[in-house]
Order: sequence, then C-alpha cells, then structure tokens
Amino acid sequence: MADNFFRNGVVSMRLKLTLSYDGSDFFGWQRQPEKITVQGEIESALQKIYGEASFTNFAVTGSGRTDEGVHALGQVAHATVPNKIEPQKLISALNFYLPQSVRILICEEVDENFHAIKSAVSKTYQYDMYLGAENPLLQSRAMRLPQNVDIDKMSTAASLFVGKHDFMAFHCKGGTTKTTIRTVFKSEITECNLYGSDGLRFTVSANGFLYKMVRILAGTIIKVGTGKLQQDEVAELLLAGKEWTKKVPAEPQGLYLIKVEY
Amino acid sequence: MADNFFRNGVVSMRLKLTLSYDGSDFFGWQRQPEKITVQGEIESALQKIYGEASFTNFAVTGSGRTDEGVHALGQVAHATVPNKIEPQKLISALNFYLPQSVRILICEEVDENFHAIKSAVSKTYQYDMYLGAENPLLQSRAMRLPQNVDIDKMSTAASLFVGKHDFMAFHCKGGTTKTTIRTVFKSEITECNLYGSDGLRFTVSANGFLYKMVRILAGTIIKVGTGKLQQDEVAELLLAGKEWTKKVPAEPQGLYLIKVEY
Repeated sequence: MADNFFRNGVVSMRLKLTLSYDGSDFFGWQRQPEKITVQGEIESALQKIYGEASFTNFAVTGSGRTDEGVHALGQVAHATVPNKIEPQKLISALNFYLPQSVRILICEEVDENFHAIKSAVSKTYQYDMYLGAENPLLQSRAMRLPQNVDIDKMSTAASLFVGKHDFMAFHCKGGTTKTTIRTVFKSEITECNLYGSDGLRFTVSANGFLYKMVRILAGTIIKVGTGKLQQDEVAELLLAGKEWTKKVPAEPQGLYLIKVEY
Repeated sequence: MADNFFRNGVVSMRLKLTLSYDGSDFFGWQRQPEKITVQGEIESALQKIYGEASFTNFAVTGSGRTDEGVHALGQVAHATVPNKIEPQKLISALNFYLPQSVRILICEEVDENFHAIKSAVSKTYQYDMYLGAENPLLQSRAMRLPQNVDIDKMSTAASLFVGKHDFMAFHCKGGTTKTTIRTVFKSEITECNLYGSDGLRFTVSANGFLYKMVRILAGTIIKVGTGKLQQDEVAELLLAGKEWTKKVPAEPQGLYLIKVEY
C-alpha cells in the first residue's frame, strides 16, 4: 500500500487504472468538448463518484493518446483521487458509470510519483490485417490488405525495426517528445485466423512510440508487401533518421494497445 | 452452368449466394416490416438491381433464420432472378447496395431445384464464450461465462451430443420441421484467445438444427460447466426425447453460422 498525501486539502491517493475499450465507439482517447472520448468518460465517471469532494476536475493521464477507432486491451492511466473508496470497490463504481465499450480491469493504489507515460518501460501494440474478401466482422477490427501481398517480405520488413533507431521517418508531428530515438524489442508478423479470414498480425514492443508511429510502421510493412517499397529503402530510412514525406499510416481500426509495462 | 428457365415470362436463373454478416447490426435474418434484417436488405438490393424486370418481389431463402444478434461467416441463400447479369458481376452490384455489415462472398448459378434449406447436407455453427473480466471487444461477439466453470465437464457434455438423437429437449417450438431427430457429426469445445480473453469455442456440425437448438446446446454445456446440471442428466434428456422445461438458450451474440454444405 502506497502512502496517502494531501491534494487540495484532501487526503488523496494515486490510482493506476488498467482498462480496455472498443475504439469504434469513441473519438479517440483524448478529452474533447462535445465528443465521447475514453479520457472524457473516465474523468466524468470520477466526477460522478467523488462529486462532493473538493476536487473540481479529475485529470486522468493515459500512457498514450490512442486515435479515433484505435482499440485497447490493456491501456494504463493514472489519476489522483480522494482516499475514500478502496481501489477494488472503485472498479465497480467506475464500470457502473462508464459506457459498456470501456471497462476498467484493474485499479490499484500506487506511489504518488507513478506516471502513466513517464514511468512506462515498455509498450506493446498489435496491428491486425487480413486477406481475401471484405469481412463484415472485421469492419472496425482489422485492415483489409490488397491482393497478392508477399507475406515473407512483410515479415522481413517488420524485423528491420528491431533495435535502437532514429524513427524520425516513421512518425507524425504532434507529439511532445524530445527525441525520435526509440528501442524496439520485438517486431514480427504472425499468421492467424480472424473470424474466418486469413489474418496477419503485426506485434511490436518498444520502450516508447512516437505519434502515429505504429500505424506508420504497419503502413510501411504493407508497402513492402505490395512491392511499392523495397526492404533496402526501409533500412535506409531507419539509418538516415530524416523526415519521410511518403509515409502512409495504416488505417486506425486495425490497431490495438495491448500492454504497458512499468 | 445450369440451365435457364422461365419465371413470370422472364428467362431466369437460380442463384446460390454465400454471405457473411455482423449480426449486431440486424434484427436477425428474417424479413420484418420497418426493421433492418439481412433477408430484407438482400431482397431490397435485388429489387434495386432488377427493378425494371417483371418480377415484383425477390424472395431470398436462407439456409436458416438466424436470430437477432447472431452472426454468419458462411450463410447460404437462394433466389431466382432474371438471367441478365453474370453471377460474378452480381456480387459487386449486391455489395454496392447492401450495408457494409453484410457482404456477398460467392454468387453462383445453380440448378433450378437447388434449395438453401432442403438441399443442405450439413451445417456448422460456432458458439464463442470467454472467461474473466468483461471484455468490451467481445460485447456483441461472445458470451461471458460465470466464474469457476469446469472446462473438462463442458467438453464431456459437448461430446454427448455426437450421433443420431432425438433433440426434442434441446429446441424451441417455432420451426417448421416434421421430426426432432438430427445427426450431430461433430460437437467439441476448444480453447482460444479472444481479444486478450481466455476463450472457449463450441463447434457443432449436424445434418440440420432445430429452432434455437445450437443456443440451447451451448446453454446446456454452460449449465454443466457451472455444476447446475450433471452429465448424466444430459444423457437422459437425449435418450428421453421429451420436452425439457428448464432449457436455457445461451445469449445470441456468441453464435456464428460458419458453413453450410450441399
């Protein structure tokens, strides 16, 4: 059990929330006026639970701001709340007020200094793709690939990202990061069955990701698979560490934030 | 290529359609006034395509009427249409008019006597269940099981259905069938990963299914898993071939019509 502390004159605790959501029901993670977002819904649920406390706004910080349509099986967020309700009971209270498309899985009291972004040591994403005819069950769950992609070339392309590289070419501006260097621990393509379709799953773990980086990595792998980009060119982009104007992020609906480790 | 024939004075052909759909977007298969159903959408798409023909209504017959919320990866239907458009081109025309949540996968000309229900020799369904915390990505895709189900007992219960039995106890009235005897070729439980949750998949093939039969078989297996019903009792119900007032159909959203063979 971590120590409690005072915030706005109230005995408080820091919470670590682990949660999952179906991204197709939200305008992404980040709070926006008049729009249903995951962060907005959690903050509003906390407001309902602790309404009478001296906190006027509950700021929830997520490990990353997932885009509109992106899903999460294990997003992590932190928040500071009055120390009135046991974390275990808060799960039920939060899930009571939250829409069904977002569920709090774990709620734990952590050290005051725990930070969902800064304390993370590794994040894992999955990007789902599929071959063949349009599959209605994958409409908001995976990206349909063009015909005749070369899976071996896609696997090789994925493996090139492993290691410490400057991912300048593979991100979009809009993040708050100081450096574009990241270390990728794992980057691989596996075959799977997705609701009757032949699926390809790109799994990537790193010590951190830049803005839109996973979707651009997936988009790059798809370009290699369709022969629009050569593996050598990917290797050069990784070495050069420069802007890449031809980058194409893969569609959002195939992306899942799987796990954040601390 | 099957022979053409006259219907209402128009050179006609019989079509066999293989299709998939996300059942959460429909009020089931069967046409209903003022409601969006799969059958209704296909009939209305055919009407738009052949509007000027002397057919006034296009009757589409499905291999089975899936309930509201039930999905299909390989539903089969037949229809009689004017012999004006090649089946291969009809796929694009139908998919153009149909909502995204239903997709025609195969469209073939078949013998005039082909009948989606009567010609079927085998049908396969899958019923998806999962353990653990509520998973937003399985909300309309699988049934969440109570805690502490016994998977071995569920597997044994599933295996009892294999063979030729009177499934009177395991159906609801409302079908048009003459006999409640069916032959089950395969009935098994496999473990799988469903969007990060531990999943259990019940797969069942038979020469035909009675009204709500698969959901009742799944509900029965779940009852055995939770200890509310003994395997012996299931065996007795199969032998007795009588009504069973305590039958409970499992929730519709876990059910998928996988394949129909002819």
